[in-house]
Amino acid sequence: MADEPSINPLIELTQHAMSEVNNIILERLQSDVPLIPQLAGHLIAAGGKRLRPMLCIASSMVSSQNLKKAPEAALYLSASVEFIHNATLLHDDVIDASNQRRGKQTANALWGNEASVLVGDFLFARAFELMVETNDIWVLEKLSLAAAQITEGEVKQMSMQGQPDSQKSDYFSVIKGKTGVLFAAAAQTGSKVGKGDNDLCEAFYNYGLALGNAFQIMDDALDYGASDGQIGKDLGDDFSEMKVTLPIILAWHDSTVEERKFWERTFRAGKQKEGDFQKAKEIIAKYNCIERALDYAKVEVEKAINSISGIPSSSLKDALVEAAKFACLRDN
Amino acid sequence: MADEPSINPLIELTQHAMSEVNNIILERLQSDVPLIPQLAGHLIAAGGKRLRPMLCIASSMVSSQNLKKAPEAALYLSASVEFIHNATLLHDDVIDASNQRRGKQTANALWGNEASVLVGDFLFARAFELMVETNDIWVLEKLSLAAAQITEGEVKQMSMQGQPDSQKSDYFSVIKGKTGVLFAAAAQTGSKVGKGDNDLCEAFYNYGLALGNAFQIMDDALDYGASDGQIGKDLGDDFSEMKVTLPIILAWHDSTVEERKFWERTFRAGKQKEGDFQKAKEIIAKYNCIERALDYAKVEVEKAINSISGIPSSSLKDALVEAAKFACLRDN
Repeated sequence: MADEPSINPLIELTQHAMSEVNNIILERLQSDVPLIPQLAGHLIAAGGKRLRPMLCIASSMVSSQNLKKAPEAALYLSASVEFIHNATLLHDDVIDASNQRRGKQTANALWGNEASVLVGDFLFARAFELMVETNDIWVLEKLSLAAAQITEGEVKQMSMQGQPDSQKSDYFSVIKGKTGVLFAAAAQTGSKVGKGDNDLCEAFYNYGLALGNAFQIMDDALDYGASDGQIGKDLGDDFSEMKVTLPIILAWHDSTVEERKFWERTFRAGKQKEGDFQKAKEIIAKYNCIERALDYAKVEVEKAINSISGIPSSSLKDALVEAAKFACLRDN
Repeated sequence: MADEPSINPLIELTQHAMSEVNNIILERLQSDVPLIPQLAGHLIAAGGKRLRPMLCIASSMVSSQNLKKAPEAALYLSASVEFIHNATLLHDDVIDASNQRRGKQTANALWGNEASVLVGDFLFARAFELMVETNDIWVLEKLSLAAAQITEGEVKQMSMQGQPDSQKSDYFSVIKGKTGVLFAAAAQTGSKVGKGDNDLCEAFYNYGLALGNAFQIMDDALDYGASDGQIGKDLGDDFSEMKVTLPIILAWHDSTVEERKFWERTFRAGKQKEGDFQKAKEIIAKYNCIERALDYAKVEVEKAINSISGIPSSSLKDALVEAAKFACLRDN
């Protein structure tokens, strides 16, 4: 197992900058209204992997050809990207009525939906303030476009809720919006503040997009349990929320008339009972839908790696390639 | 009544530009995800007075010394400001669980809270995209700061809910955040894109801030009914939401022990029954709290007028002065 791809090299190489990003995050959570740092701090301090800011830092360092130190603008940009991400998490938890996130009670469970909506808005506004500090209109344009695309992805996902006969193309459009574009914009704008030329910014955009897509496909697949006994996640959330993800779309396509009645009842009619999640997993397993979803993730990983194949060799490039390979292995 | 101050001169003088702003608004509501223009269009097409964009247009025209035509950047900026305002309305209606807005069913009542949260986020993101088109970092800085302050005001308002013994200073800090700063930033950044100098931008900031505060004080006062028989608004929403506004703070201060028990029950304990709103209005009337609130609004109106006293005379300046006087008369 020691030779399995890992995200650790990327973590190590961006560690110094990320501790500065962390300080900016904590500083910019402050407000004269005490509930804001309390609630936002609860979520942000809980951590998560901080993949998006890490990617932003890495692409800025590769682009500026200085692997020792990230450009200062990249620090603000990374904090901004993490704020946007956390704003969407706060609102997602309200929308999904979730009680658990990152192993802790959600903010909406603790402080109520109203506070989560407003503090999400606060983080979103603060994200734009941080972005402005990069002093780069091009960066602002790309990130505000990404922010709009994220919400479009989320609305589209909501529109597909309960429709097991949705198209694969709709699923890919949803995950591009809800996950891909923020990874993409983080890497692209990181490259820009590192003075990457247009080609390099675009290469990083494509890398980020494919990486984000891969992570999301994996996340959606693992919600129905992985074939190799991976653990560490509350399974079945997507099922109980009638969220139509790739395993469902693949399973629906192959399902018998009888099985389709099951999907119709549990998704479209939203009538779920004890044992249904187990039954869903059985149908999904019968048609190898987890493995087939993982294959889609692998395609994205290949795209990610190809996108940056032209950049000069470095330890950080190797770490980015390895992080992409890790994306279709992760166990959380 | 013909001599009463009116907002009509301001509407007429900004009419041409506002029709262009309207086109930008409708164009930027578009999305490949059909629910977005449907839901956002429902709210935005319902109109409202569009005071914020109108103010932005007016200050840009005064500052550019061209009363015939607004600078192009001001059109985008105005649309952006209206998007921010409507994003906050969508989220407010979710938070207040409102069913009516501008005489129509609210978006959350029609499409659900989830959709309203997400489409609010979309409008917020689109607002930033529009802002970026002004190509002016200073403008972006001021508006993103305003966006953060709006949410701080809203969170602070939420924290004060049910506390009739809140301080007047807290109330003024809430209304500055939730209403004043967006009026202020609209006027200030309008002036900036009209090439107003620092003093002029600041004068318009102060004008907008005081005008916004005046409108909010009036709105809050009129929710308990005006002494002169004004109508046209569903009364009592603030009371049933236990929102602590100026009439309540003034009334609490003067209330007898017995009356304070009433406020404790209806606000802090949130136990309201038939007849309580009438009783609240009686206590408020007993201590002249509506009139006293209107006096606070008049102070803001004076501040607004004084802020722009130094700018050269013009029909548009007169219209802005009249609009300020209108703020403490309005009957909606």
